[in-house]
Amino acid sequence: MKPERSIPMAHDKLLFTPGPLTTSLSVKQAMLHDAGSWHYEFRETVRMVREQLLSVAGVSRQNGYESILMQGSGSFGVEAVFSTCVPRDGKVVVLANGAYGERMAQMLQVAGIGHLVLRTPENVPNDPADLDQLLIDDPSVTHVAAVHCETTTGILNPVAELGRLTRKHRRSFVVDAMSSFGAVPIDMVEAGVDFLVSSPNKCLEGVPGFSFIIARREALLACQGFARSLSLDLLSQWKGFEKNGQFRFTPPTHAILALARALSELGQEGGVAVRAARYRRNHAVLVAGMCDLGFETYLEPELQSHIITSFHCPDDPGFTFEEFYRGLSDRGFIIYPGKISQANLFRIGTIGRLFEADIRALIGGVKETLRDMQLDVADAFV
Amino acid sequence: MKPERSIPMAHDKLLFTPGPLTTSLSVKQAMLHDAGSWHYEFRETVRMVREQLLSVAGVSRQNGYESILMQGSGSFGVEAVFSTCVPRDGKVVVLANGAYGERMAQMLQVAGIGHLVLRTPENVPNDPADLDQLLIDDPSVTHVAAVHCETTTGILNPVAELGRLTRKHRRSFVVDAMSSFGAVPIDMVEAGVDFLVSSPNKCLEGVPGFSFIIARREALLACQGFARSLSLDLLSQWKGFEKNGQFRFTPPTHAILALARALSELGQEGGVAVRAARYRRNHAVLVAGMCDLGFETYLEPELQSHIITSFHCPDDPGFTFEEFYRGLSDRGFIIYPGKISQANLFRIGTIGRLFEADIRALIGGVKETLRDMQLDVADAFV
Repeated sequence: MKPERSIPMAHDKLLFTPGPLTTSLSVKQAMLHDAGSWHYEFRETVRMVREQLLSVAGVSRQNGYESILMQGSGSFGVEAVFSTCVPRDGKVVVLANGAYGERMAQMLQVAGIGHLVLRTPENVPNDPADLDQLLIDDPSVTHVAAVHCETTTGILNPVAELGRLTRKHRRSFVVDAMSSFGAVPIDMVEAGVDFLVSSPNKCLEGVPGFSFIIARREALLACQGFARSLSLDLLSQWKGFEKNGQFRFTPPTHAILALARALSELGQEGGVAVRAARYRRNHAVLVAGMCDLGFETYLEPELQSHIITSFHCPDDPGFTFEEFYRGLSDRGFIIYPGKISQANLFRIGTIGRLFEADIRALIGGVKETLRDMQLDVADAFV
Repeated sequence: MKPERSIPMAHDKLLFTPGPLTTSLSVKQAMLHDAGSWHYEFRETVRMVREQLLSVAGVSRQNGYESILMQGSGSFGVEAVFSTCVPRDGKVVVLANGAYGERMAQMLQVAGIGHLVLRTPENVPNDPADLDQLLIDDPSVTHVAAVHCETTTGILNPVAELGRLTRKHRRSFVVDAMSSFGAVPIDMVEAGVDFLVSSPNKCLEGVPGFSFIIARREALLACQGFARSLSLDLLSQWKGFEKNGQFRFTPPTHAILALARALSELGQEGGVAVRAARYRRNHAVLVAGMCDLGFETYLEPELQSHIITSFHCPDDPGFTFEEFYRGLSDRGFIIYPGKISQANLFRIGTIGRLFEADIRALIGGVKETLRDMQLDVADAFV
């Protein structure tokens, strides 16, 4: 899709995406400062951010958890966990029902780490019974890895149940909570999560540029000597923070200042529960509005997160995603393409600095775009 | 060093560091926008940035070079090159005279990549004759890796000569040009550089959050199948850009918008030659001013870059780096500690959005700080 015009609008287009997403102006303004990475003021910011992330996760250093910031995107954080924490003779079971589960398998493949994949279809949650049986049958499995909210479709996976089984069988549990952290709580202790990976640029409403890992300290310390990469060495990164409060390598200072501000705004909003309620409301208004226009969701409602929602493209030769996308973009709304092969979908995210009024405006934009495309979606879905 | 006070000043403290460094307000303001990473406007920005980086490097796609942006700090970019481009039976010679050369060796060690290190003392440039002999003696060496400006001390290494020898012996040449790119030109073609790594957050005066690699296309394409890491896979990253103009994984959108702006400001300033002249002037004023106060530089002037300069700490019991640092910080100037073990040094960077007047203000601050510390540096250096 080529830019036909790229004259900026008076305000940024709203991002109905899984991230990079719309953030508050004040979060972006926190980046109007150049912080010295060695300077004590910045180190204090890093310390506070690390502590607050533990608090959002519902854990603390006192009860045995640590938070580690890692440069790079969220996927770099996930790879850092595998690359640092799986022993040479380790074996990871990946539960996959979408692109992010498959990406984990791909990481393990490229890194030469033993693994196998338990797949379910993209509209079916991970199967705890399958995992239970596998952990009984294969004693060589050392780690279990799952994706909490699979952004491919927006499906929520049963991490609490998977974690309970993993702990029962005394394996280590890794959770990609990229798009859920801060809005779909996980009880890390109860679910026995050893390593949880997320990004500042999802429900925390910061900007992209690094990931963070919440680790059970004992599990982290047990990784000594396994690292396969210097940059992605989670344990050394943590030791660096412990030693002098610094990153080992240049940190994305501006993105960290933005997260510090975003965490304070999360508190101002009322914390995780209130933010989750806003996203749930966004999602409910979106689904009601789109269904009124004749669209259909891909997932059964009970499997659907309030993070991102997949809709079927109308089965009408007059509908192309490209034209639909551009019509919405011209009206200031950026949606997201589908990512799976089995169905012709598009996606709409409901996280970020978006409110019910923004969702209603988007629905209005969809209605106008369909009118321009001379489409009656209700007819297309007969 | 704990923060005794962290009340912000009316303006940011000036960073006389090797980065994160002081950037223009307009570069930071470029981050006041949330860009959709999938959106065509952002893709166009990425395309332009990649093209302009080639131009700053003095090469082009037409003459066989490619630029690749990689999430993470500069070191992630260096590791991406090794991790992607050295075959399983490859062997890298690292030329080291400081922390960044040693870091390369450490990366290769952790990744299990064959290597050896040719060391010179930290105040002595890499030795081309040593390299020549080694390449004659050891046919198993596949790659040569050097650091252009070793930020540990500020020493400049003879990359043109190293490159000539490497090419003569038909090996591949990797250059860490992190702190020099954009202000100390390298003729990539003449020096036979296959992979050059740098950061937006040095002489280009962008913000930290990713690195970039300028690669000879033929050398890059020859790396198929070597990758040891999915995240750091340079070849796949390039293929992603070629396929659809996108990053494979979430890009640091704000930091990229900042670099786009920074590149345009580099052009406004008059390009690399004019910027280099500003930094040379900064460096000359710094050294003259500090020497007037009695300080001594660590390196011989002819080895010294205009990027960052190491000074000896006065040999006086009344001088502690901590007190000196804090005195300068309270006056709005952030300097940098030493990094080597053989000498008691501190460092002052002269890159970033700093001008002669800023250097003069810093010298004034040094004078006042010494007065507060009741130190006469000229006496201390007898």
